[in-house]
Amino acid sequence: MTAASGTGATELFGKVALLGVGLIGSSLALACRRHGLAGRLAGYARSAESREVIERLRLTDSVHAEPAEAVADADLVVLCVPVGANAAVAEAMLPGLKPGAIVTDVGSVKQAVIRDVGPLLPEGVHFVPGHPIAGTEHSGPAAGFADLFEERYCVLTPPPGADEAAVGRVAELWRRCGSRVETMEPAHHDKVLAMTSHLPHLISYTIVGTAYDLAESERGEVIKFAAGGFRDFTRIAGSDPVMWRDIFLNNREAVLEILQRFGEDLSRLQRAIRWGEAEVLEDRFRRTREIRRGVIQLGQAGTFDAREPHKDDEAG
Amino acid sequence: MTAASGTGATELFGKVALLGVGLIGSSLALACRRHGLAGRLAGYARSAESREVIERLRLTDSVHAEPAEAVADADLVVLCVPVGANAAVAEAMLPGLKPGAIVTDVGSVKQAVIRDVGPLLPEGVHFVPGHPIAGTEHSGPAAGFADLFEERYCVLTPPPGADEAAVGRVAELWRRCGSRVETMEPAHHDKVLAMTSHLPHLISYTIVGTAYDLAESERGEVIKFAAGGFRDFTRIAGSDPVMWRDIFLNNREAVLEILQRFGEDLSRLQRAIRWGEAEVLEDRFRRTREIRRGVIQLGQAGTFDAREPHKDDEAG
Repeated sequence: MTAASGTGATELFGKVALLGVGLIGSSLALACRRHGLAGRLAGYARSAESREVIERLRLTDSVHAEPAEAVADADLVVLCVPVGANAAVAEAMLPGLKPGAIVTDVGSVKQAVIRDVGPLLPEGVHFVPGHPIAGTEHSGPAAGFADLFEERYCVLTPPPGADEAAVGRVAELWRRCGSRVETMEPAHHDKVLAMTSHLPHLISYTIVGTAYDLAESERGEVIKFAAGGFRDFTRIAGSDPVMWRDIFLNNREAVLEILQRFGEDLSRLQRAIRWGEAEVLEDRFRRTREIRRGVIQLGQAGTFDAREPHKDDEAG
Repeated sequence: MTAASGTGATELFGKVALLGVGLIGSSLALACRRHGLAGRLAGYARSAESREVIERLRLTDSVHAEPAEAVADADLVVLCVPVGANAAVAEAMLPGLKPGAIVTDVGSVKQAVIRDVGPLLPEGVHFVPGHPIAGTEHSGPAAGFADLFEERYCVLTPPPGADEAAVGRVAELWRRCGSRVETMEPAHHDKVLAMTSHLPHLISYTIVGTAYDLAESERGEVIKFAAGGFRDFTRIAGSDPVMWRDIFLNNREAVLEILQRFGEDLSRLQRAIRWGEAEVLEDRFRRTREIRRGVIQLGQAGTFDAREPHKDDEAG
């Protein structure tokens, strides 16, 4: 690891500071090492326990308890904390922030970070909000791996008038991590992600909670027979509670809007079941296959799909 | 294949008739071949297209367009059609049914098959309803594979007074296919499955439908960024529409009851998002991890979980 962290010809940034070293932060650290993207890596973590793990795994060259110390002399600062913590961490880093530095983030909500962090940054510091659409249900600094971002999309949502060179360098960072980089309007990003990510997570948390509230005996059997479809929901609902709390609170409008639509659609199916409307059910179930085909064609269907049937799901 | 279908010492049944040769029927045919469980296999399929596939793949020794022909001289008859078709197919097989034969099924709803098929069967024919909890999102006679049932549960719901020897032979069939066999009250089965399988499928169909109804431009991006959690739902919602239509119509009470609970739980989270109740969200998200741990401990978490992080899901 020390060899890879020395200065190299392809190095993009002299020093990169990761504020927050959870799943995404630690994966980015490992990807920077592997691809020689940073001359030096600094990490900030709030808890002593996380700092201990970061040091033990040598994820960054230096580990700090204060954001301002971590960002000292950094050319790139990456906010990798839960969305709701961005403002406090950004404020705390300001005393150490180098003029001309680039600040980016990895949050799943983009309007909120622009609202919370944008106004704090001094003139001459370049702000390039970003969102690598990658993750697992695991969290914490020990959960990261270097190829997490490979073949995944990374969406940048630069504000109007953003410095093009800064945007280009952040884009290049993610490209070298293996990602496909796109730019998007922040509001549009938040709306699309509400549908593709935030609603599915909310639904998964809900359904697992509904199962949790069943009588003790039934709960045990729900776990036992989870292969019938429920299992996927438990995996999604195993994701970090604080991260997801913050996402819902910070993408409220878009999530509530899509939740409203979902509720109406579910009521329609509920009514069809109650009144035995066979054609309504079959029609609805049939047309969703079109979206499934699109997902498969775009290669977003997951590695196992292409190889073999996904045996564990769906009872007959 | 011809070698395995000859009479063998470990053969459980002389002749097995599969009424319906979709994913489950074709997998059962292949498992019977592999483990030498049947002296002879007969298949019934309604459509000429399916019969052509069954013949081409040599899934059964004989292929029939009439249930009564398929069951002639069969020791075991397995109903493998969508739940709503059980009554008609059972009625059509009666003229050919051998006295003393065992009749079982593979449907995801057990009270309905007992209600629909039970009264049709003559004295001396043994009825042992069953449900192998296994499947994929693929359907049709070409989708089957011999190890579909390995390590999966199979639930039998014998009615009161069922012939113990018949129950034992059906249980043995599934055990030799690699399944763990359990017995359960039909009503209890339907309630547990409503939670573990039927609700997850209904939710998945709904959420993919909600996405489908978005504006054209957004729909394309939903597909593009499906890795954020949505992807799993599209896979589940790719399941056979007719099979699932029948399941919902035939497990109406249990599905509506669990749907009611789910709706209340979702409303509570919706309210927490609207009013910014951070603790409510975090508490709910945290406790669901307990169920996830249970699923992992019981080995129902899917093959990929144990090996490596499931990289494609969950945006950060």
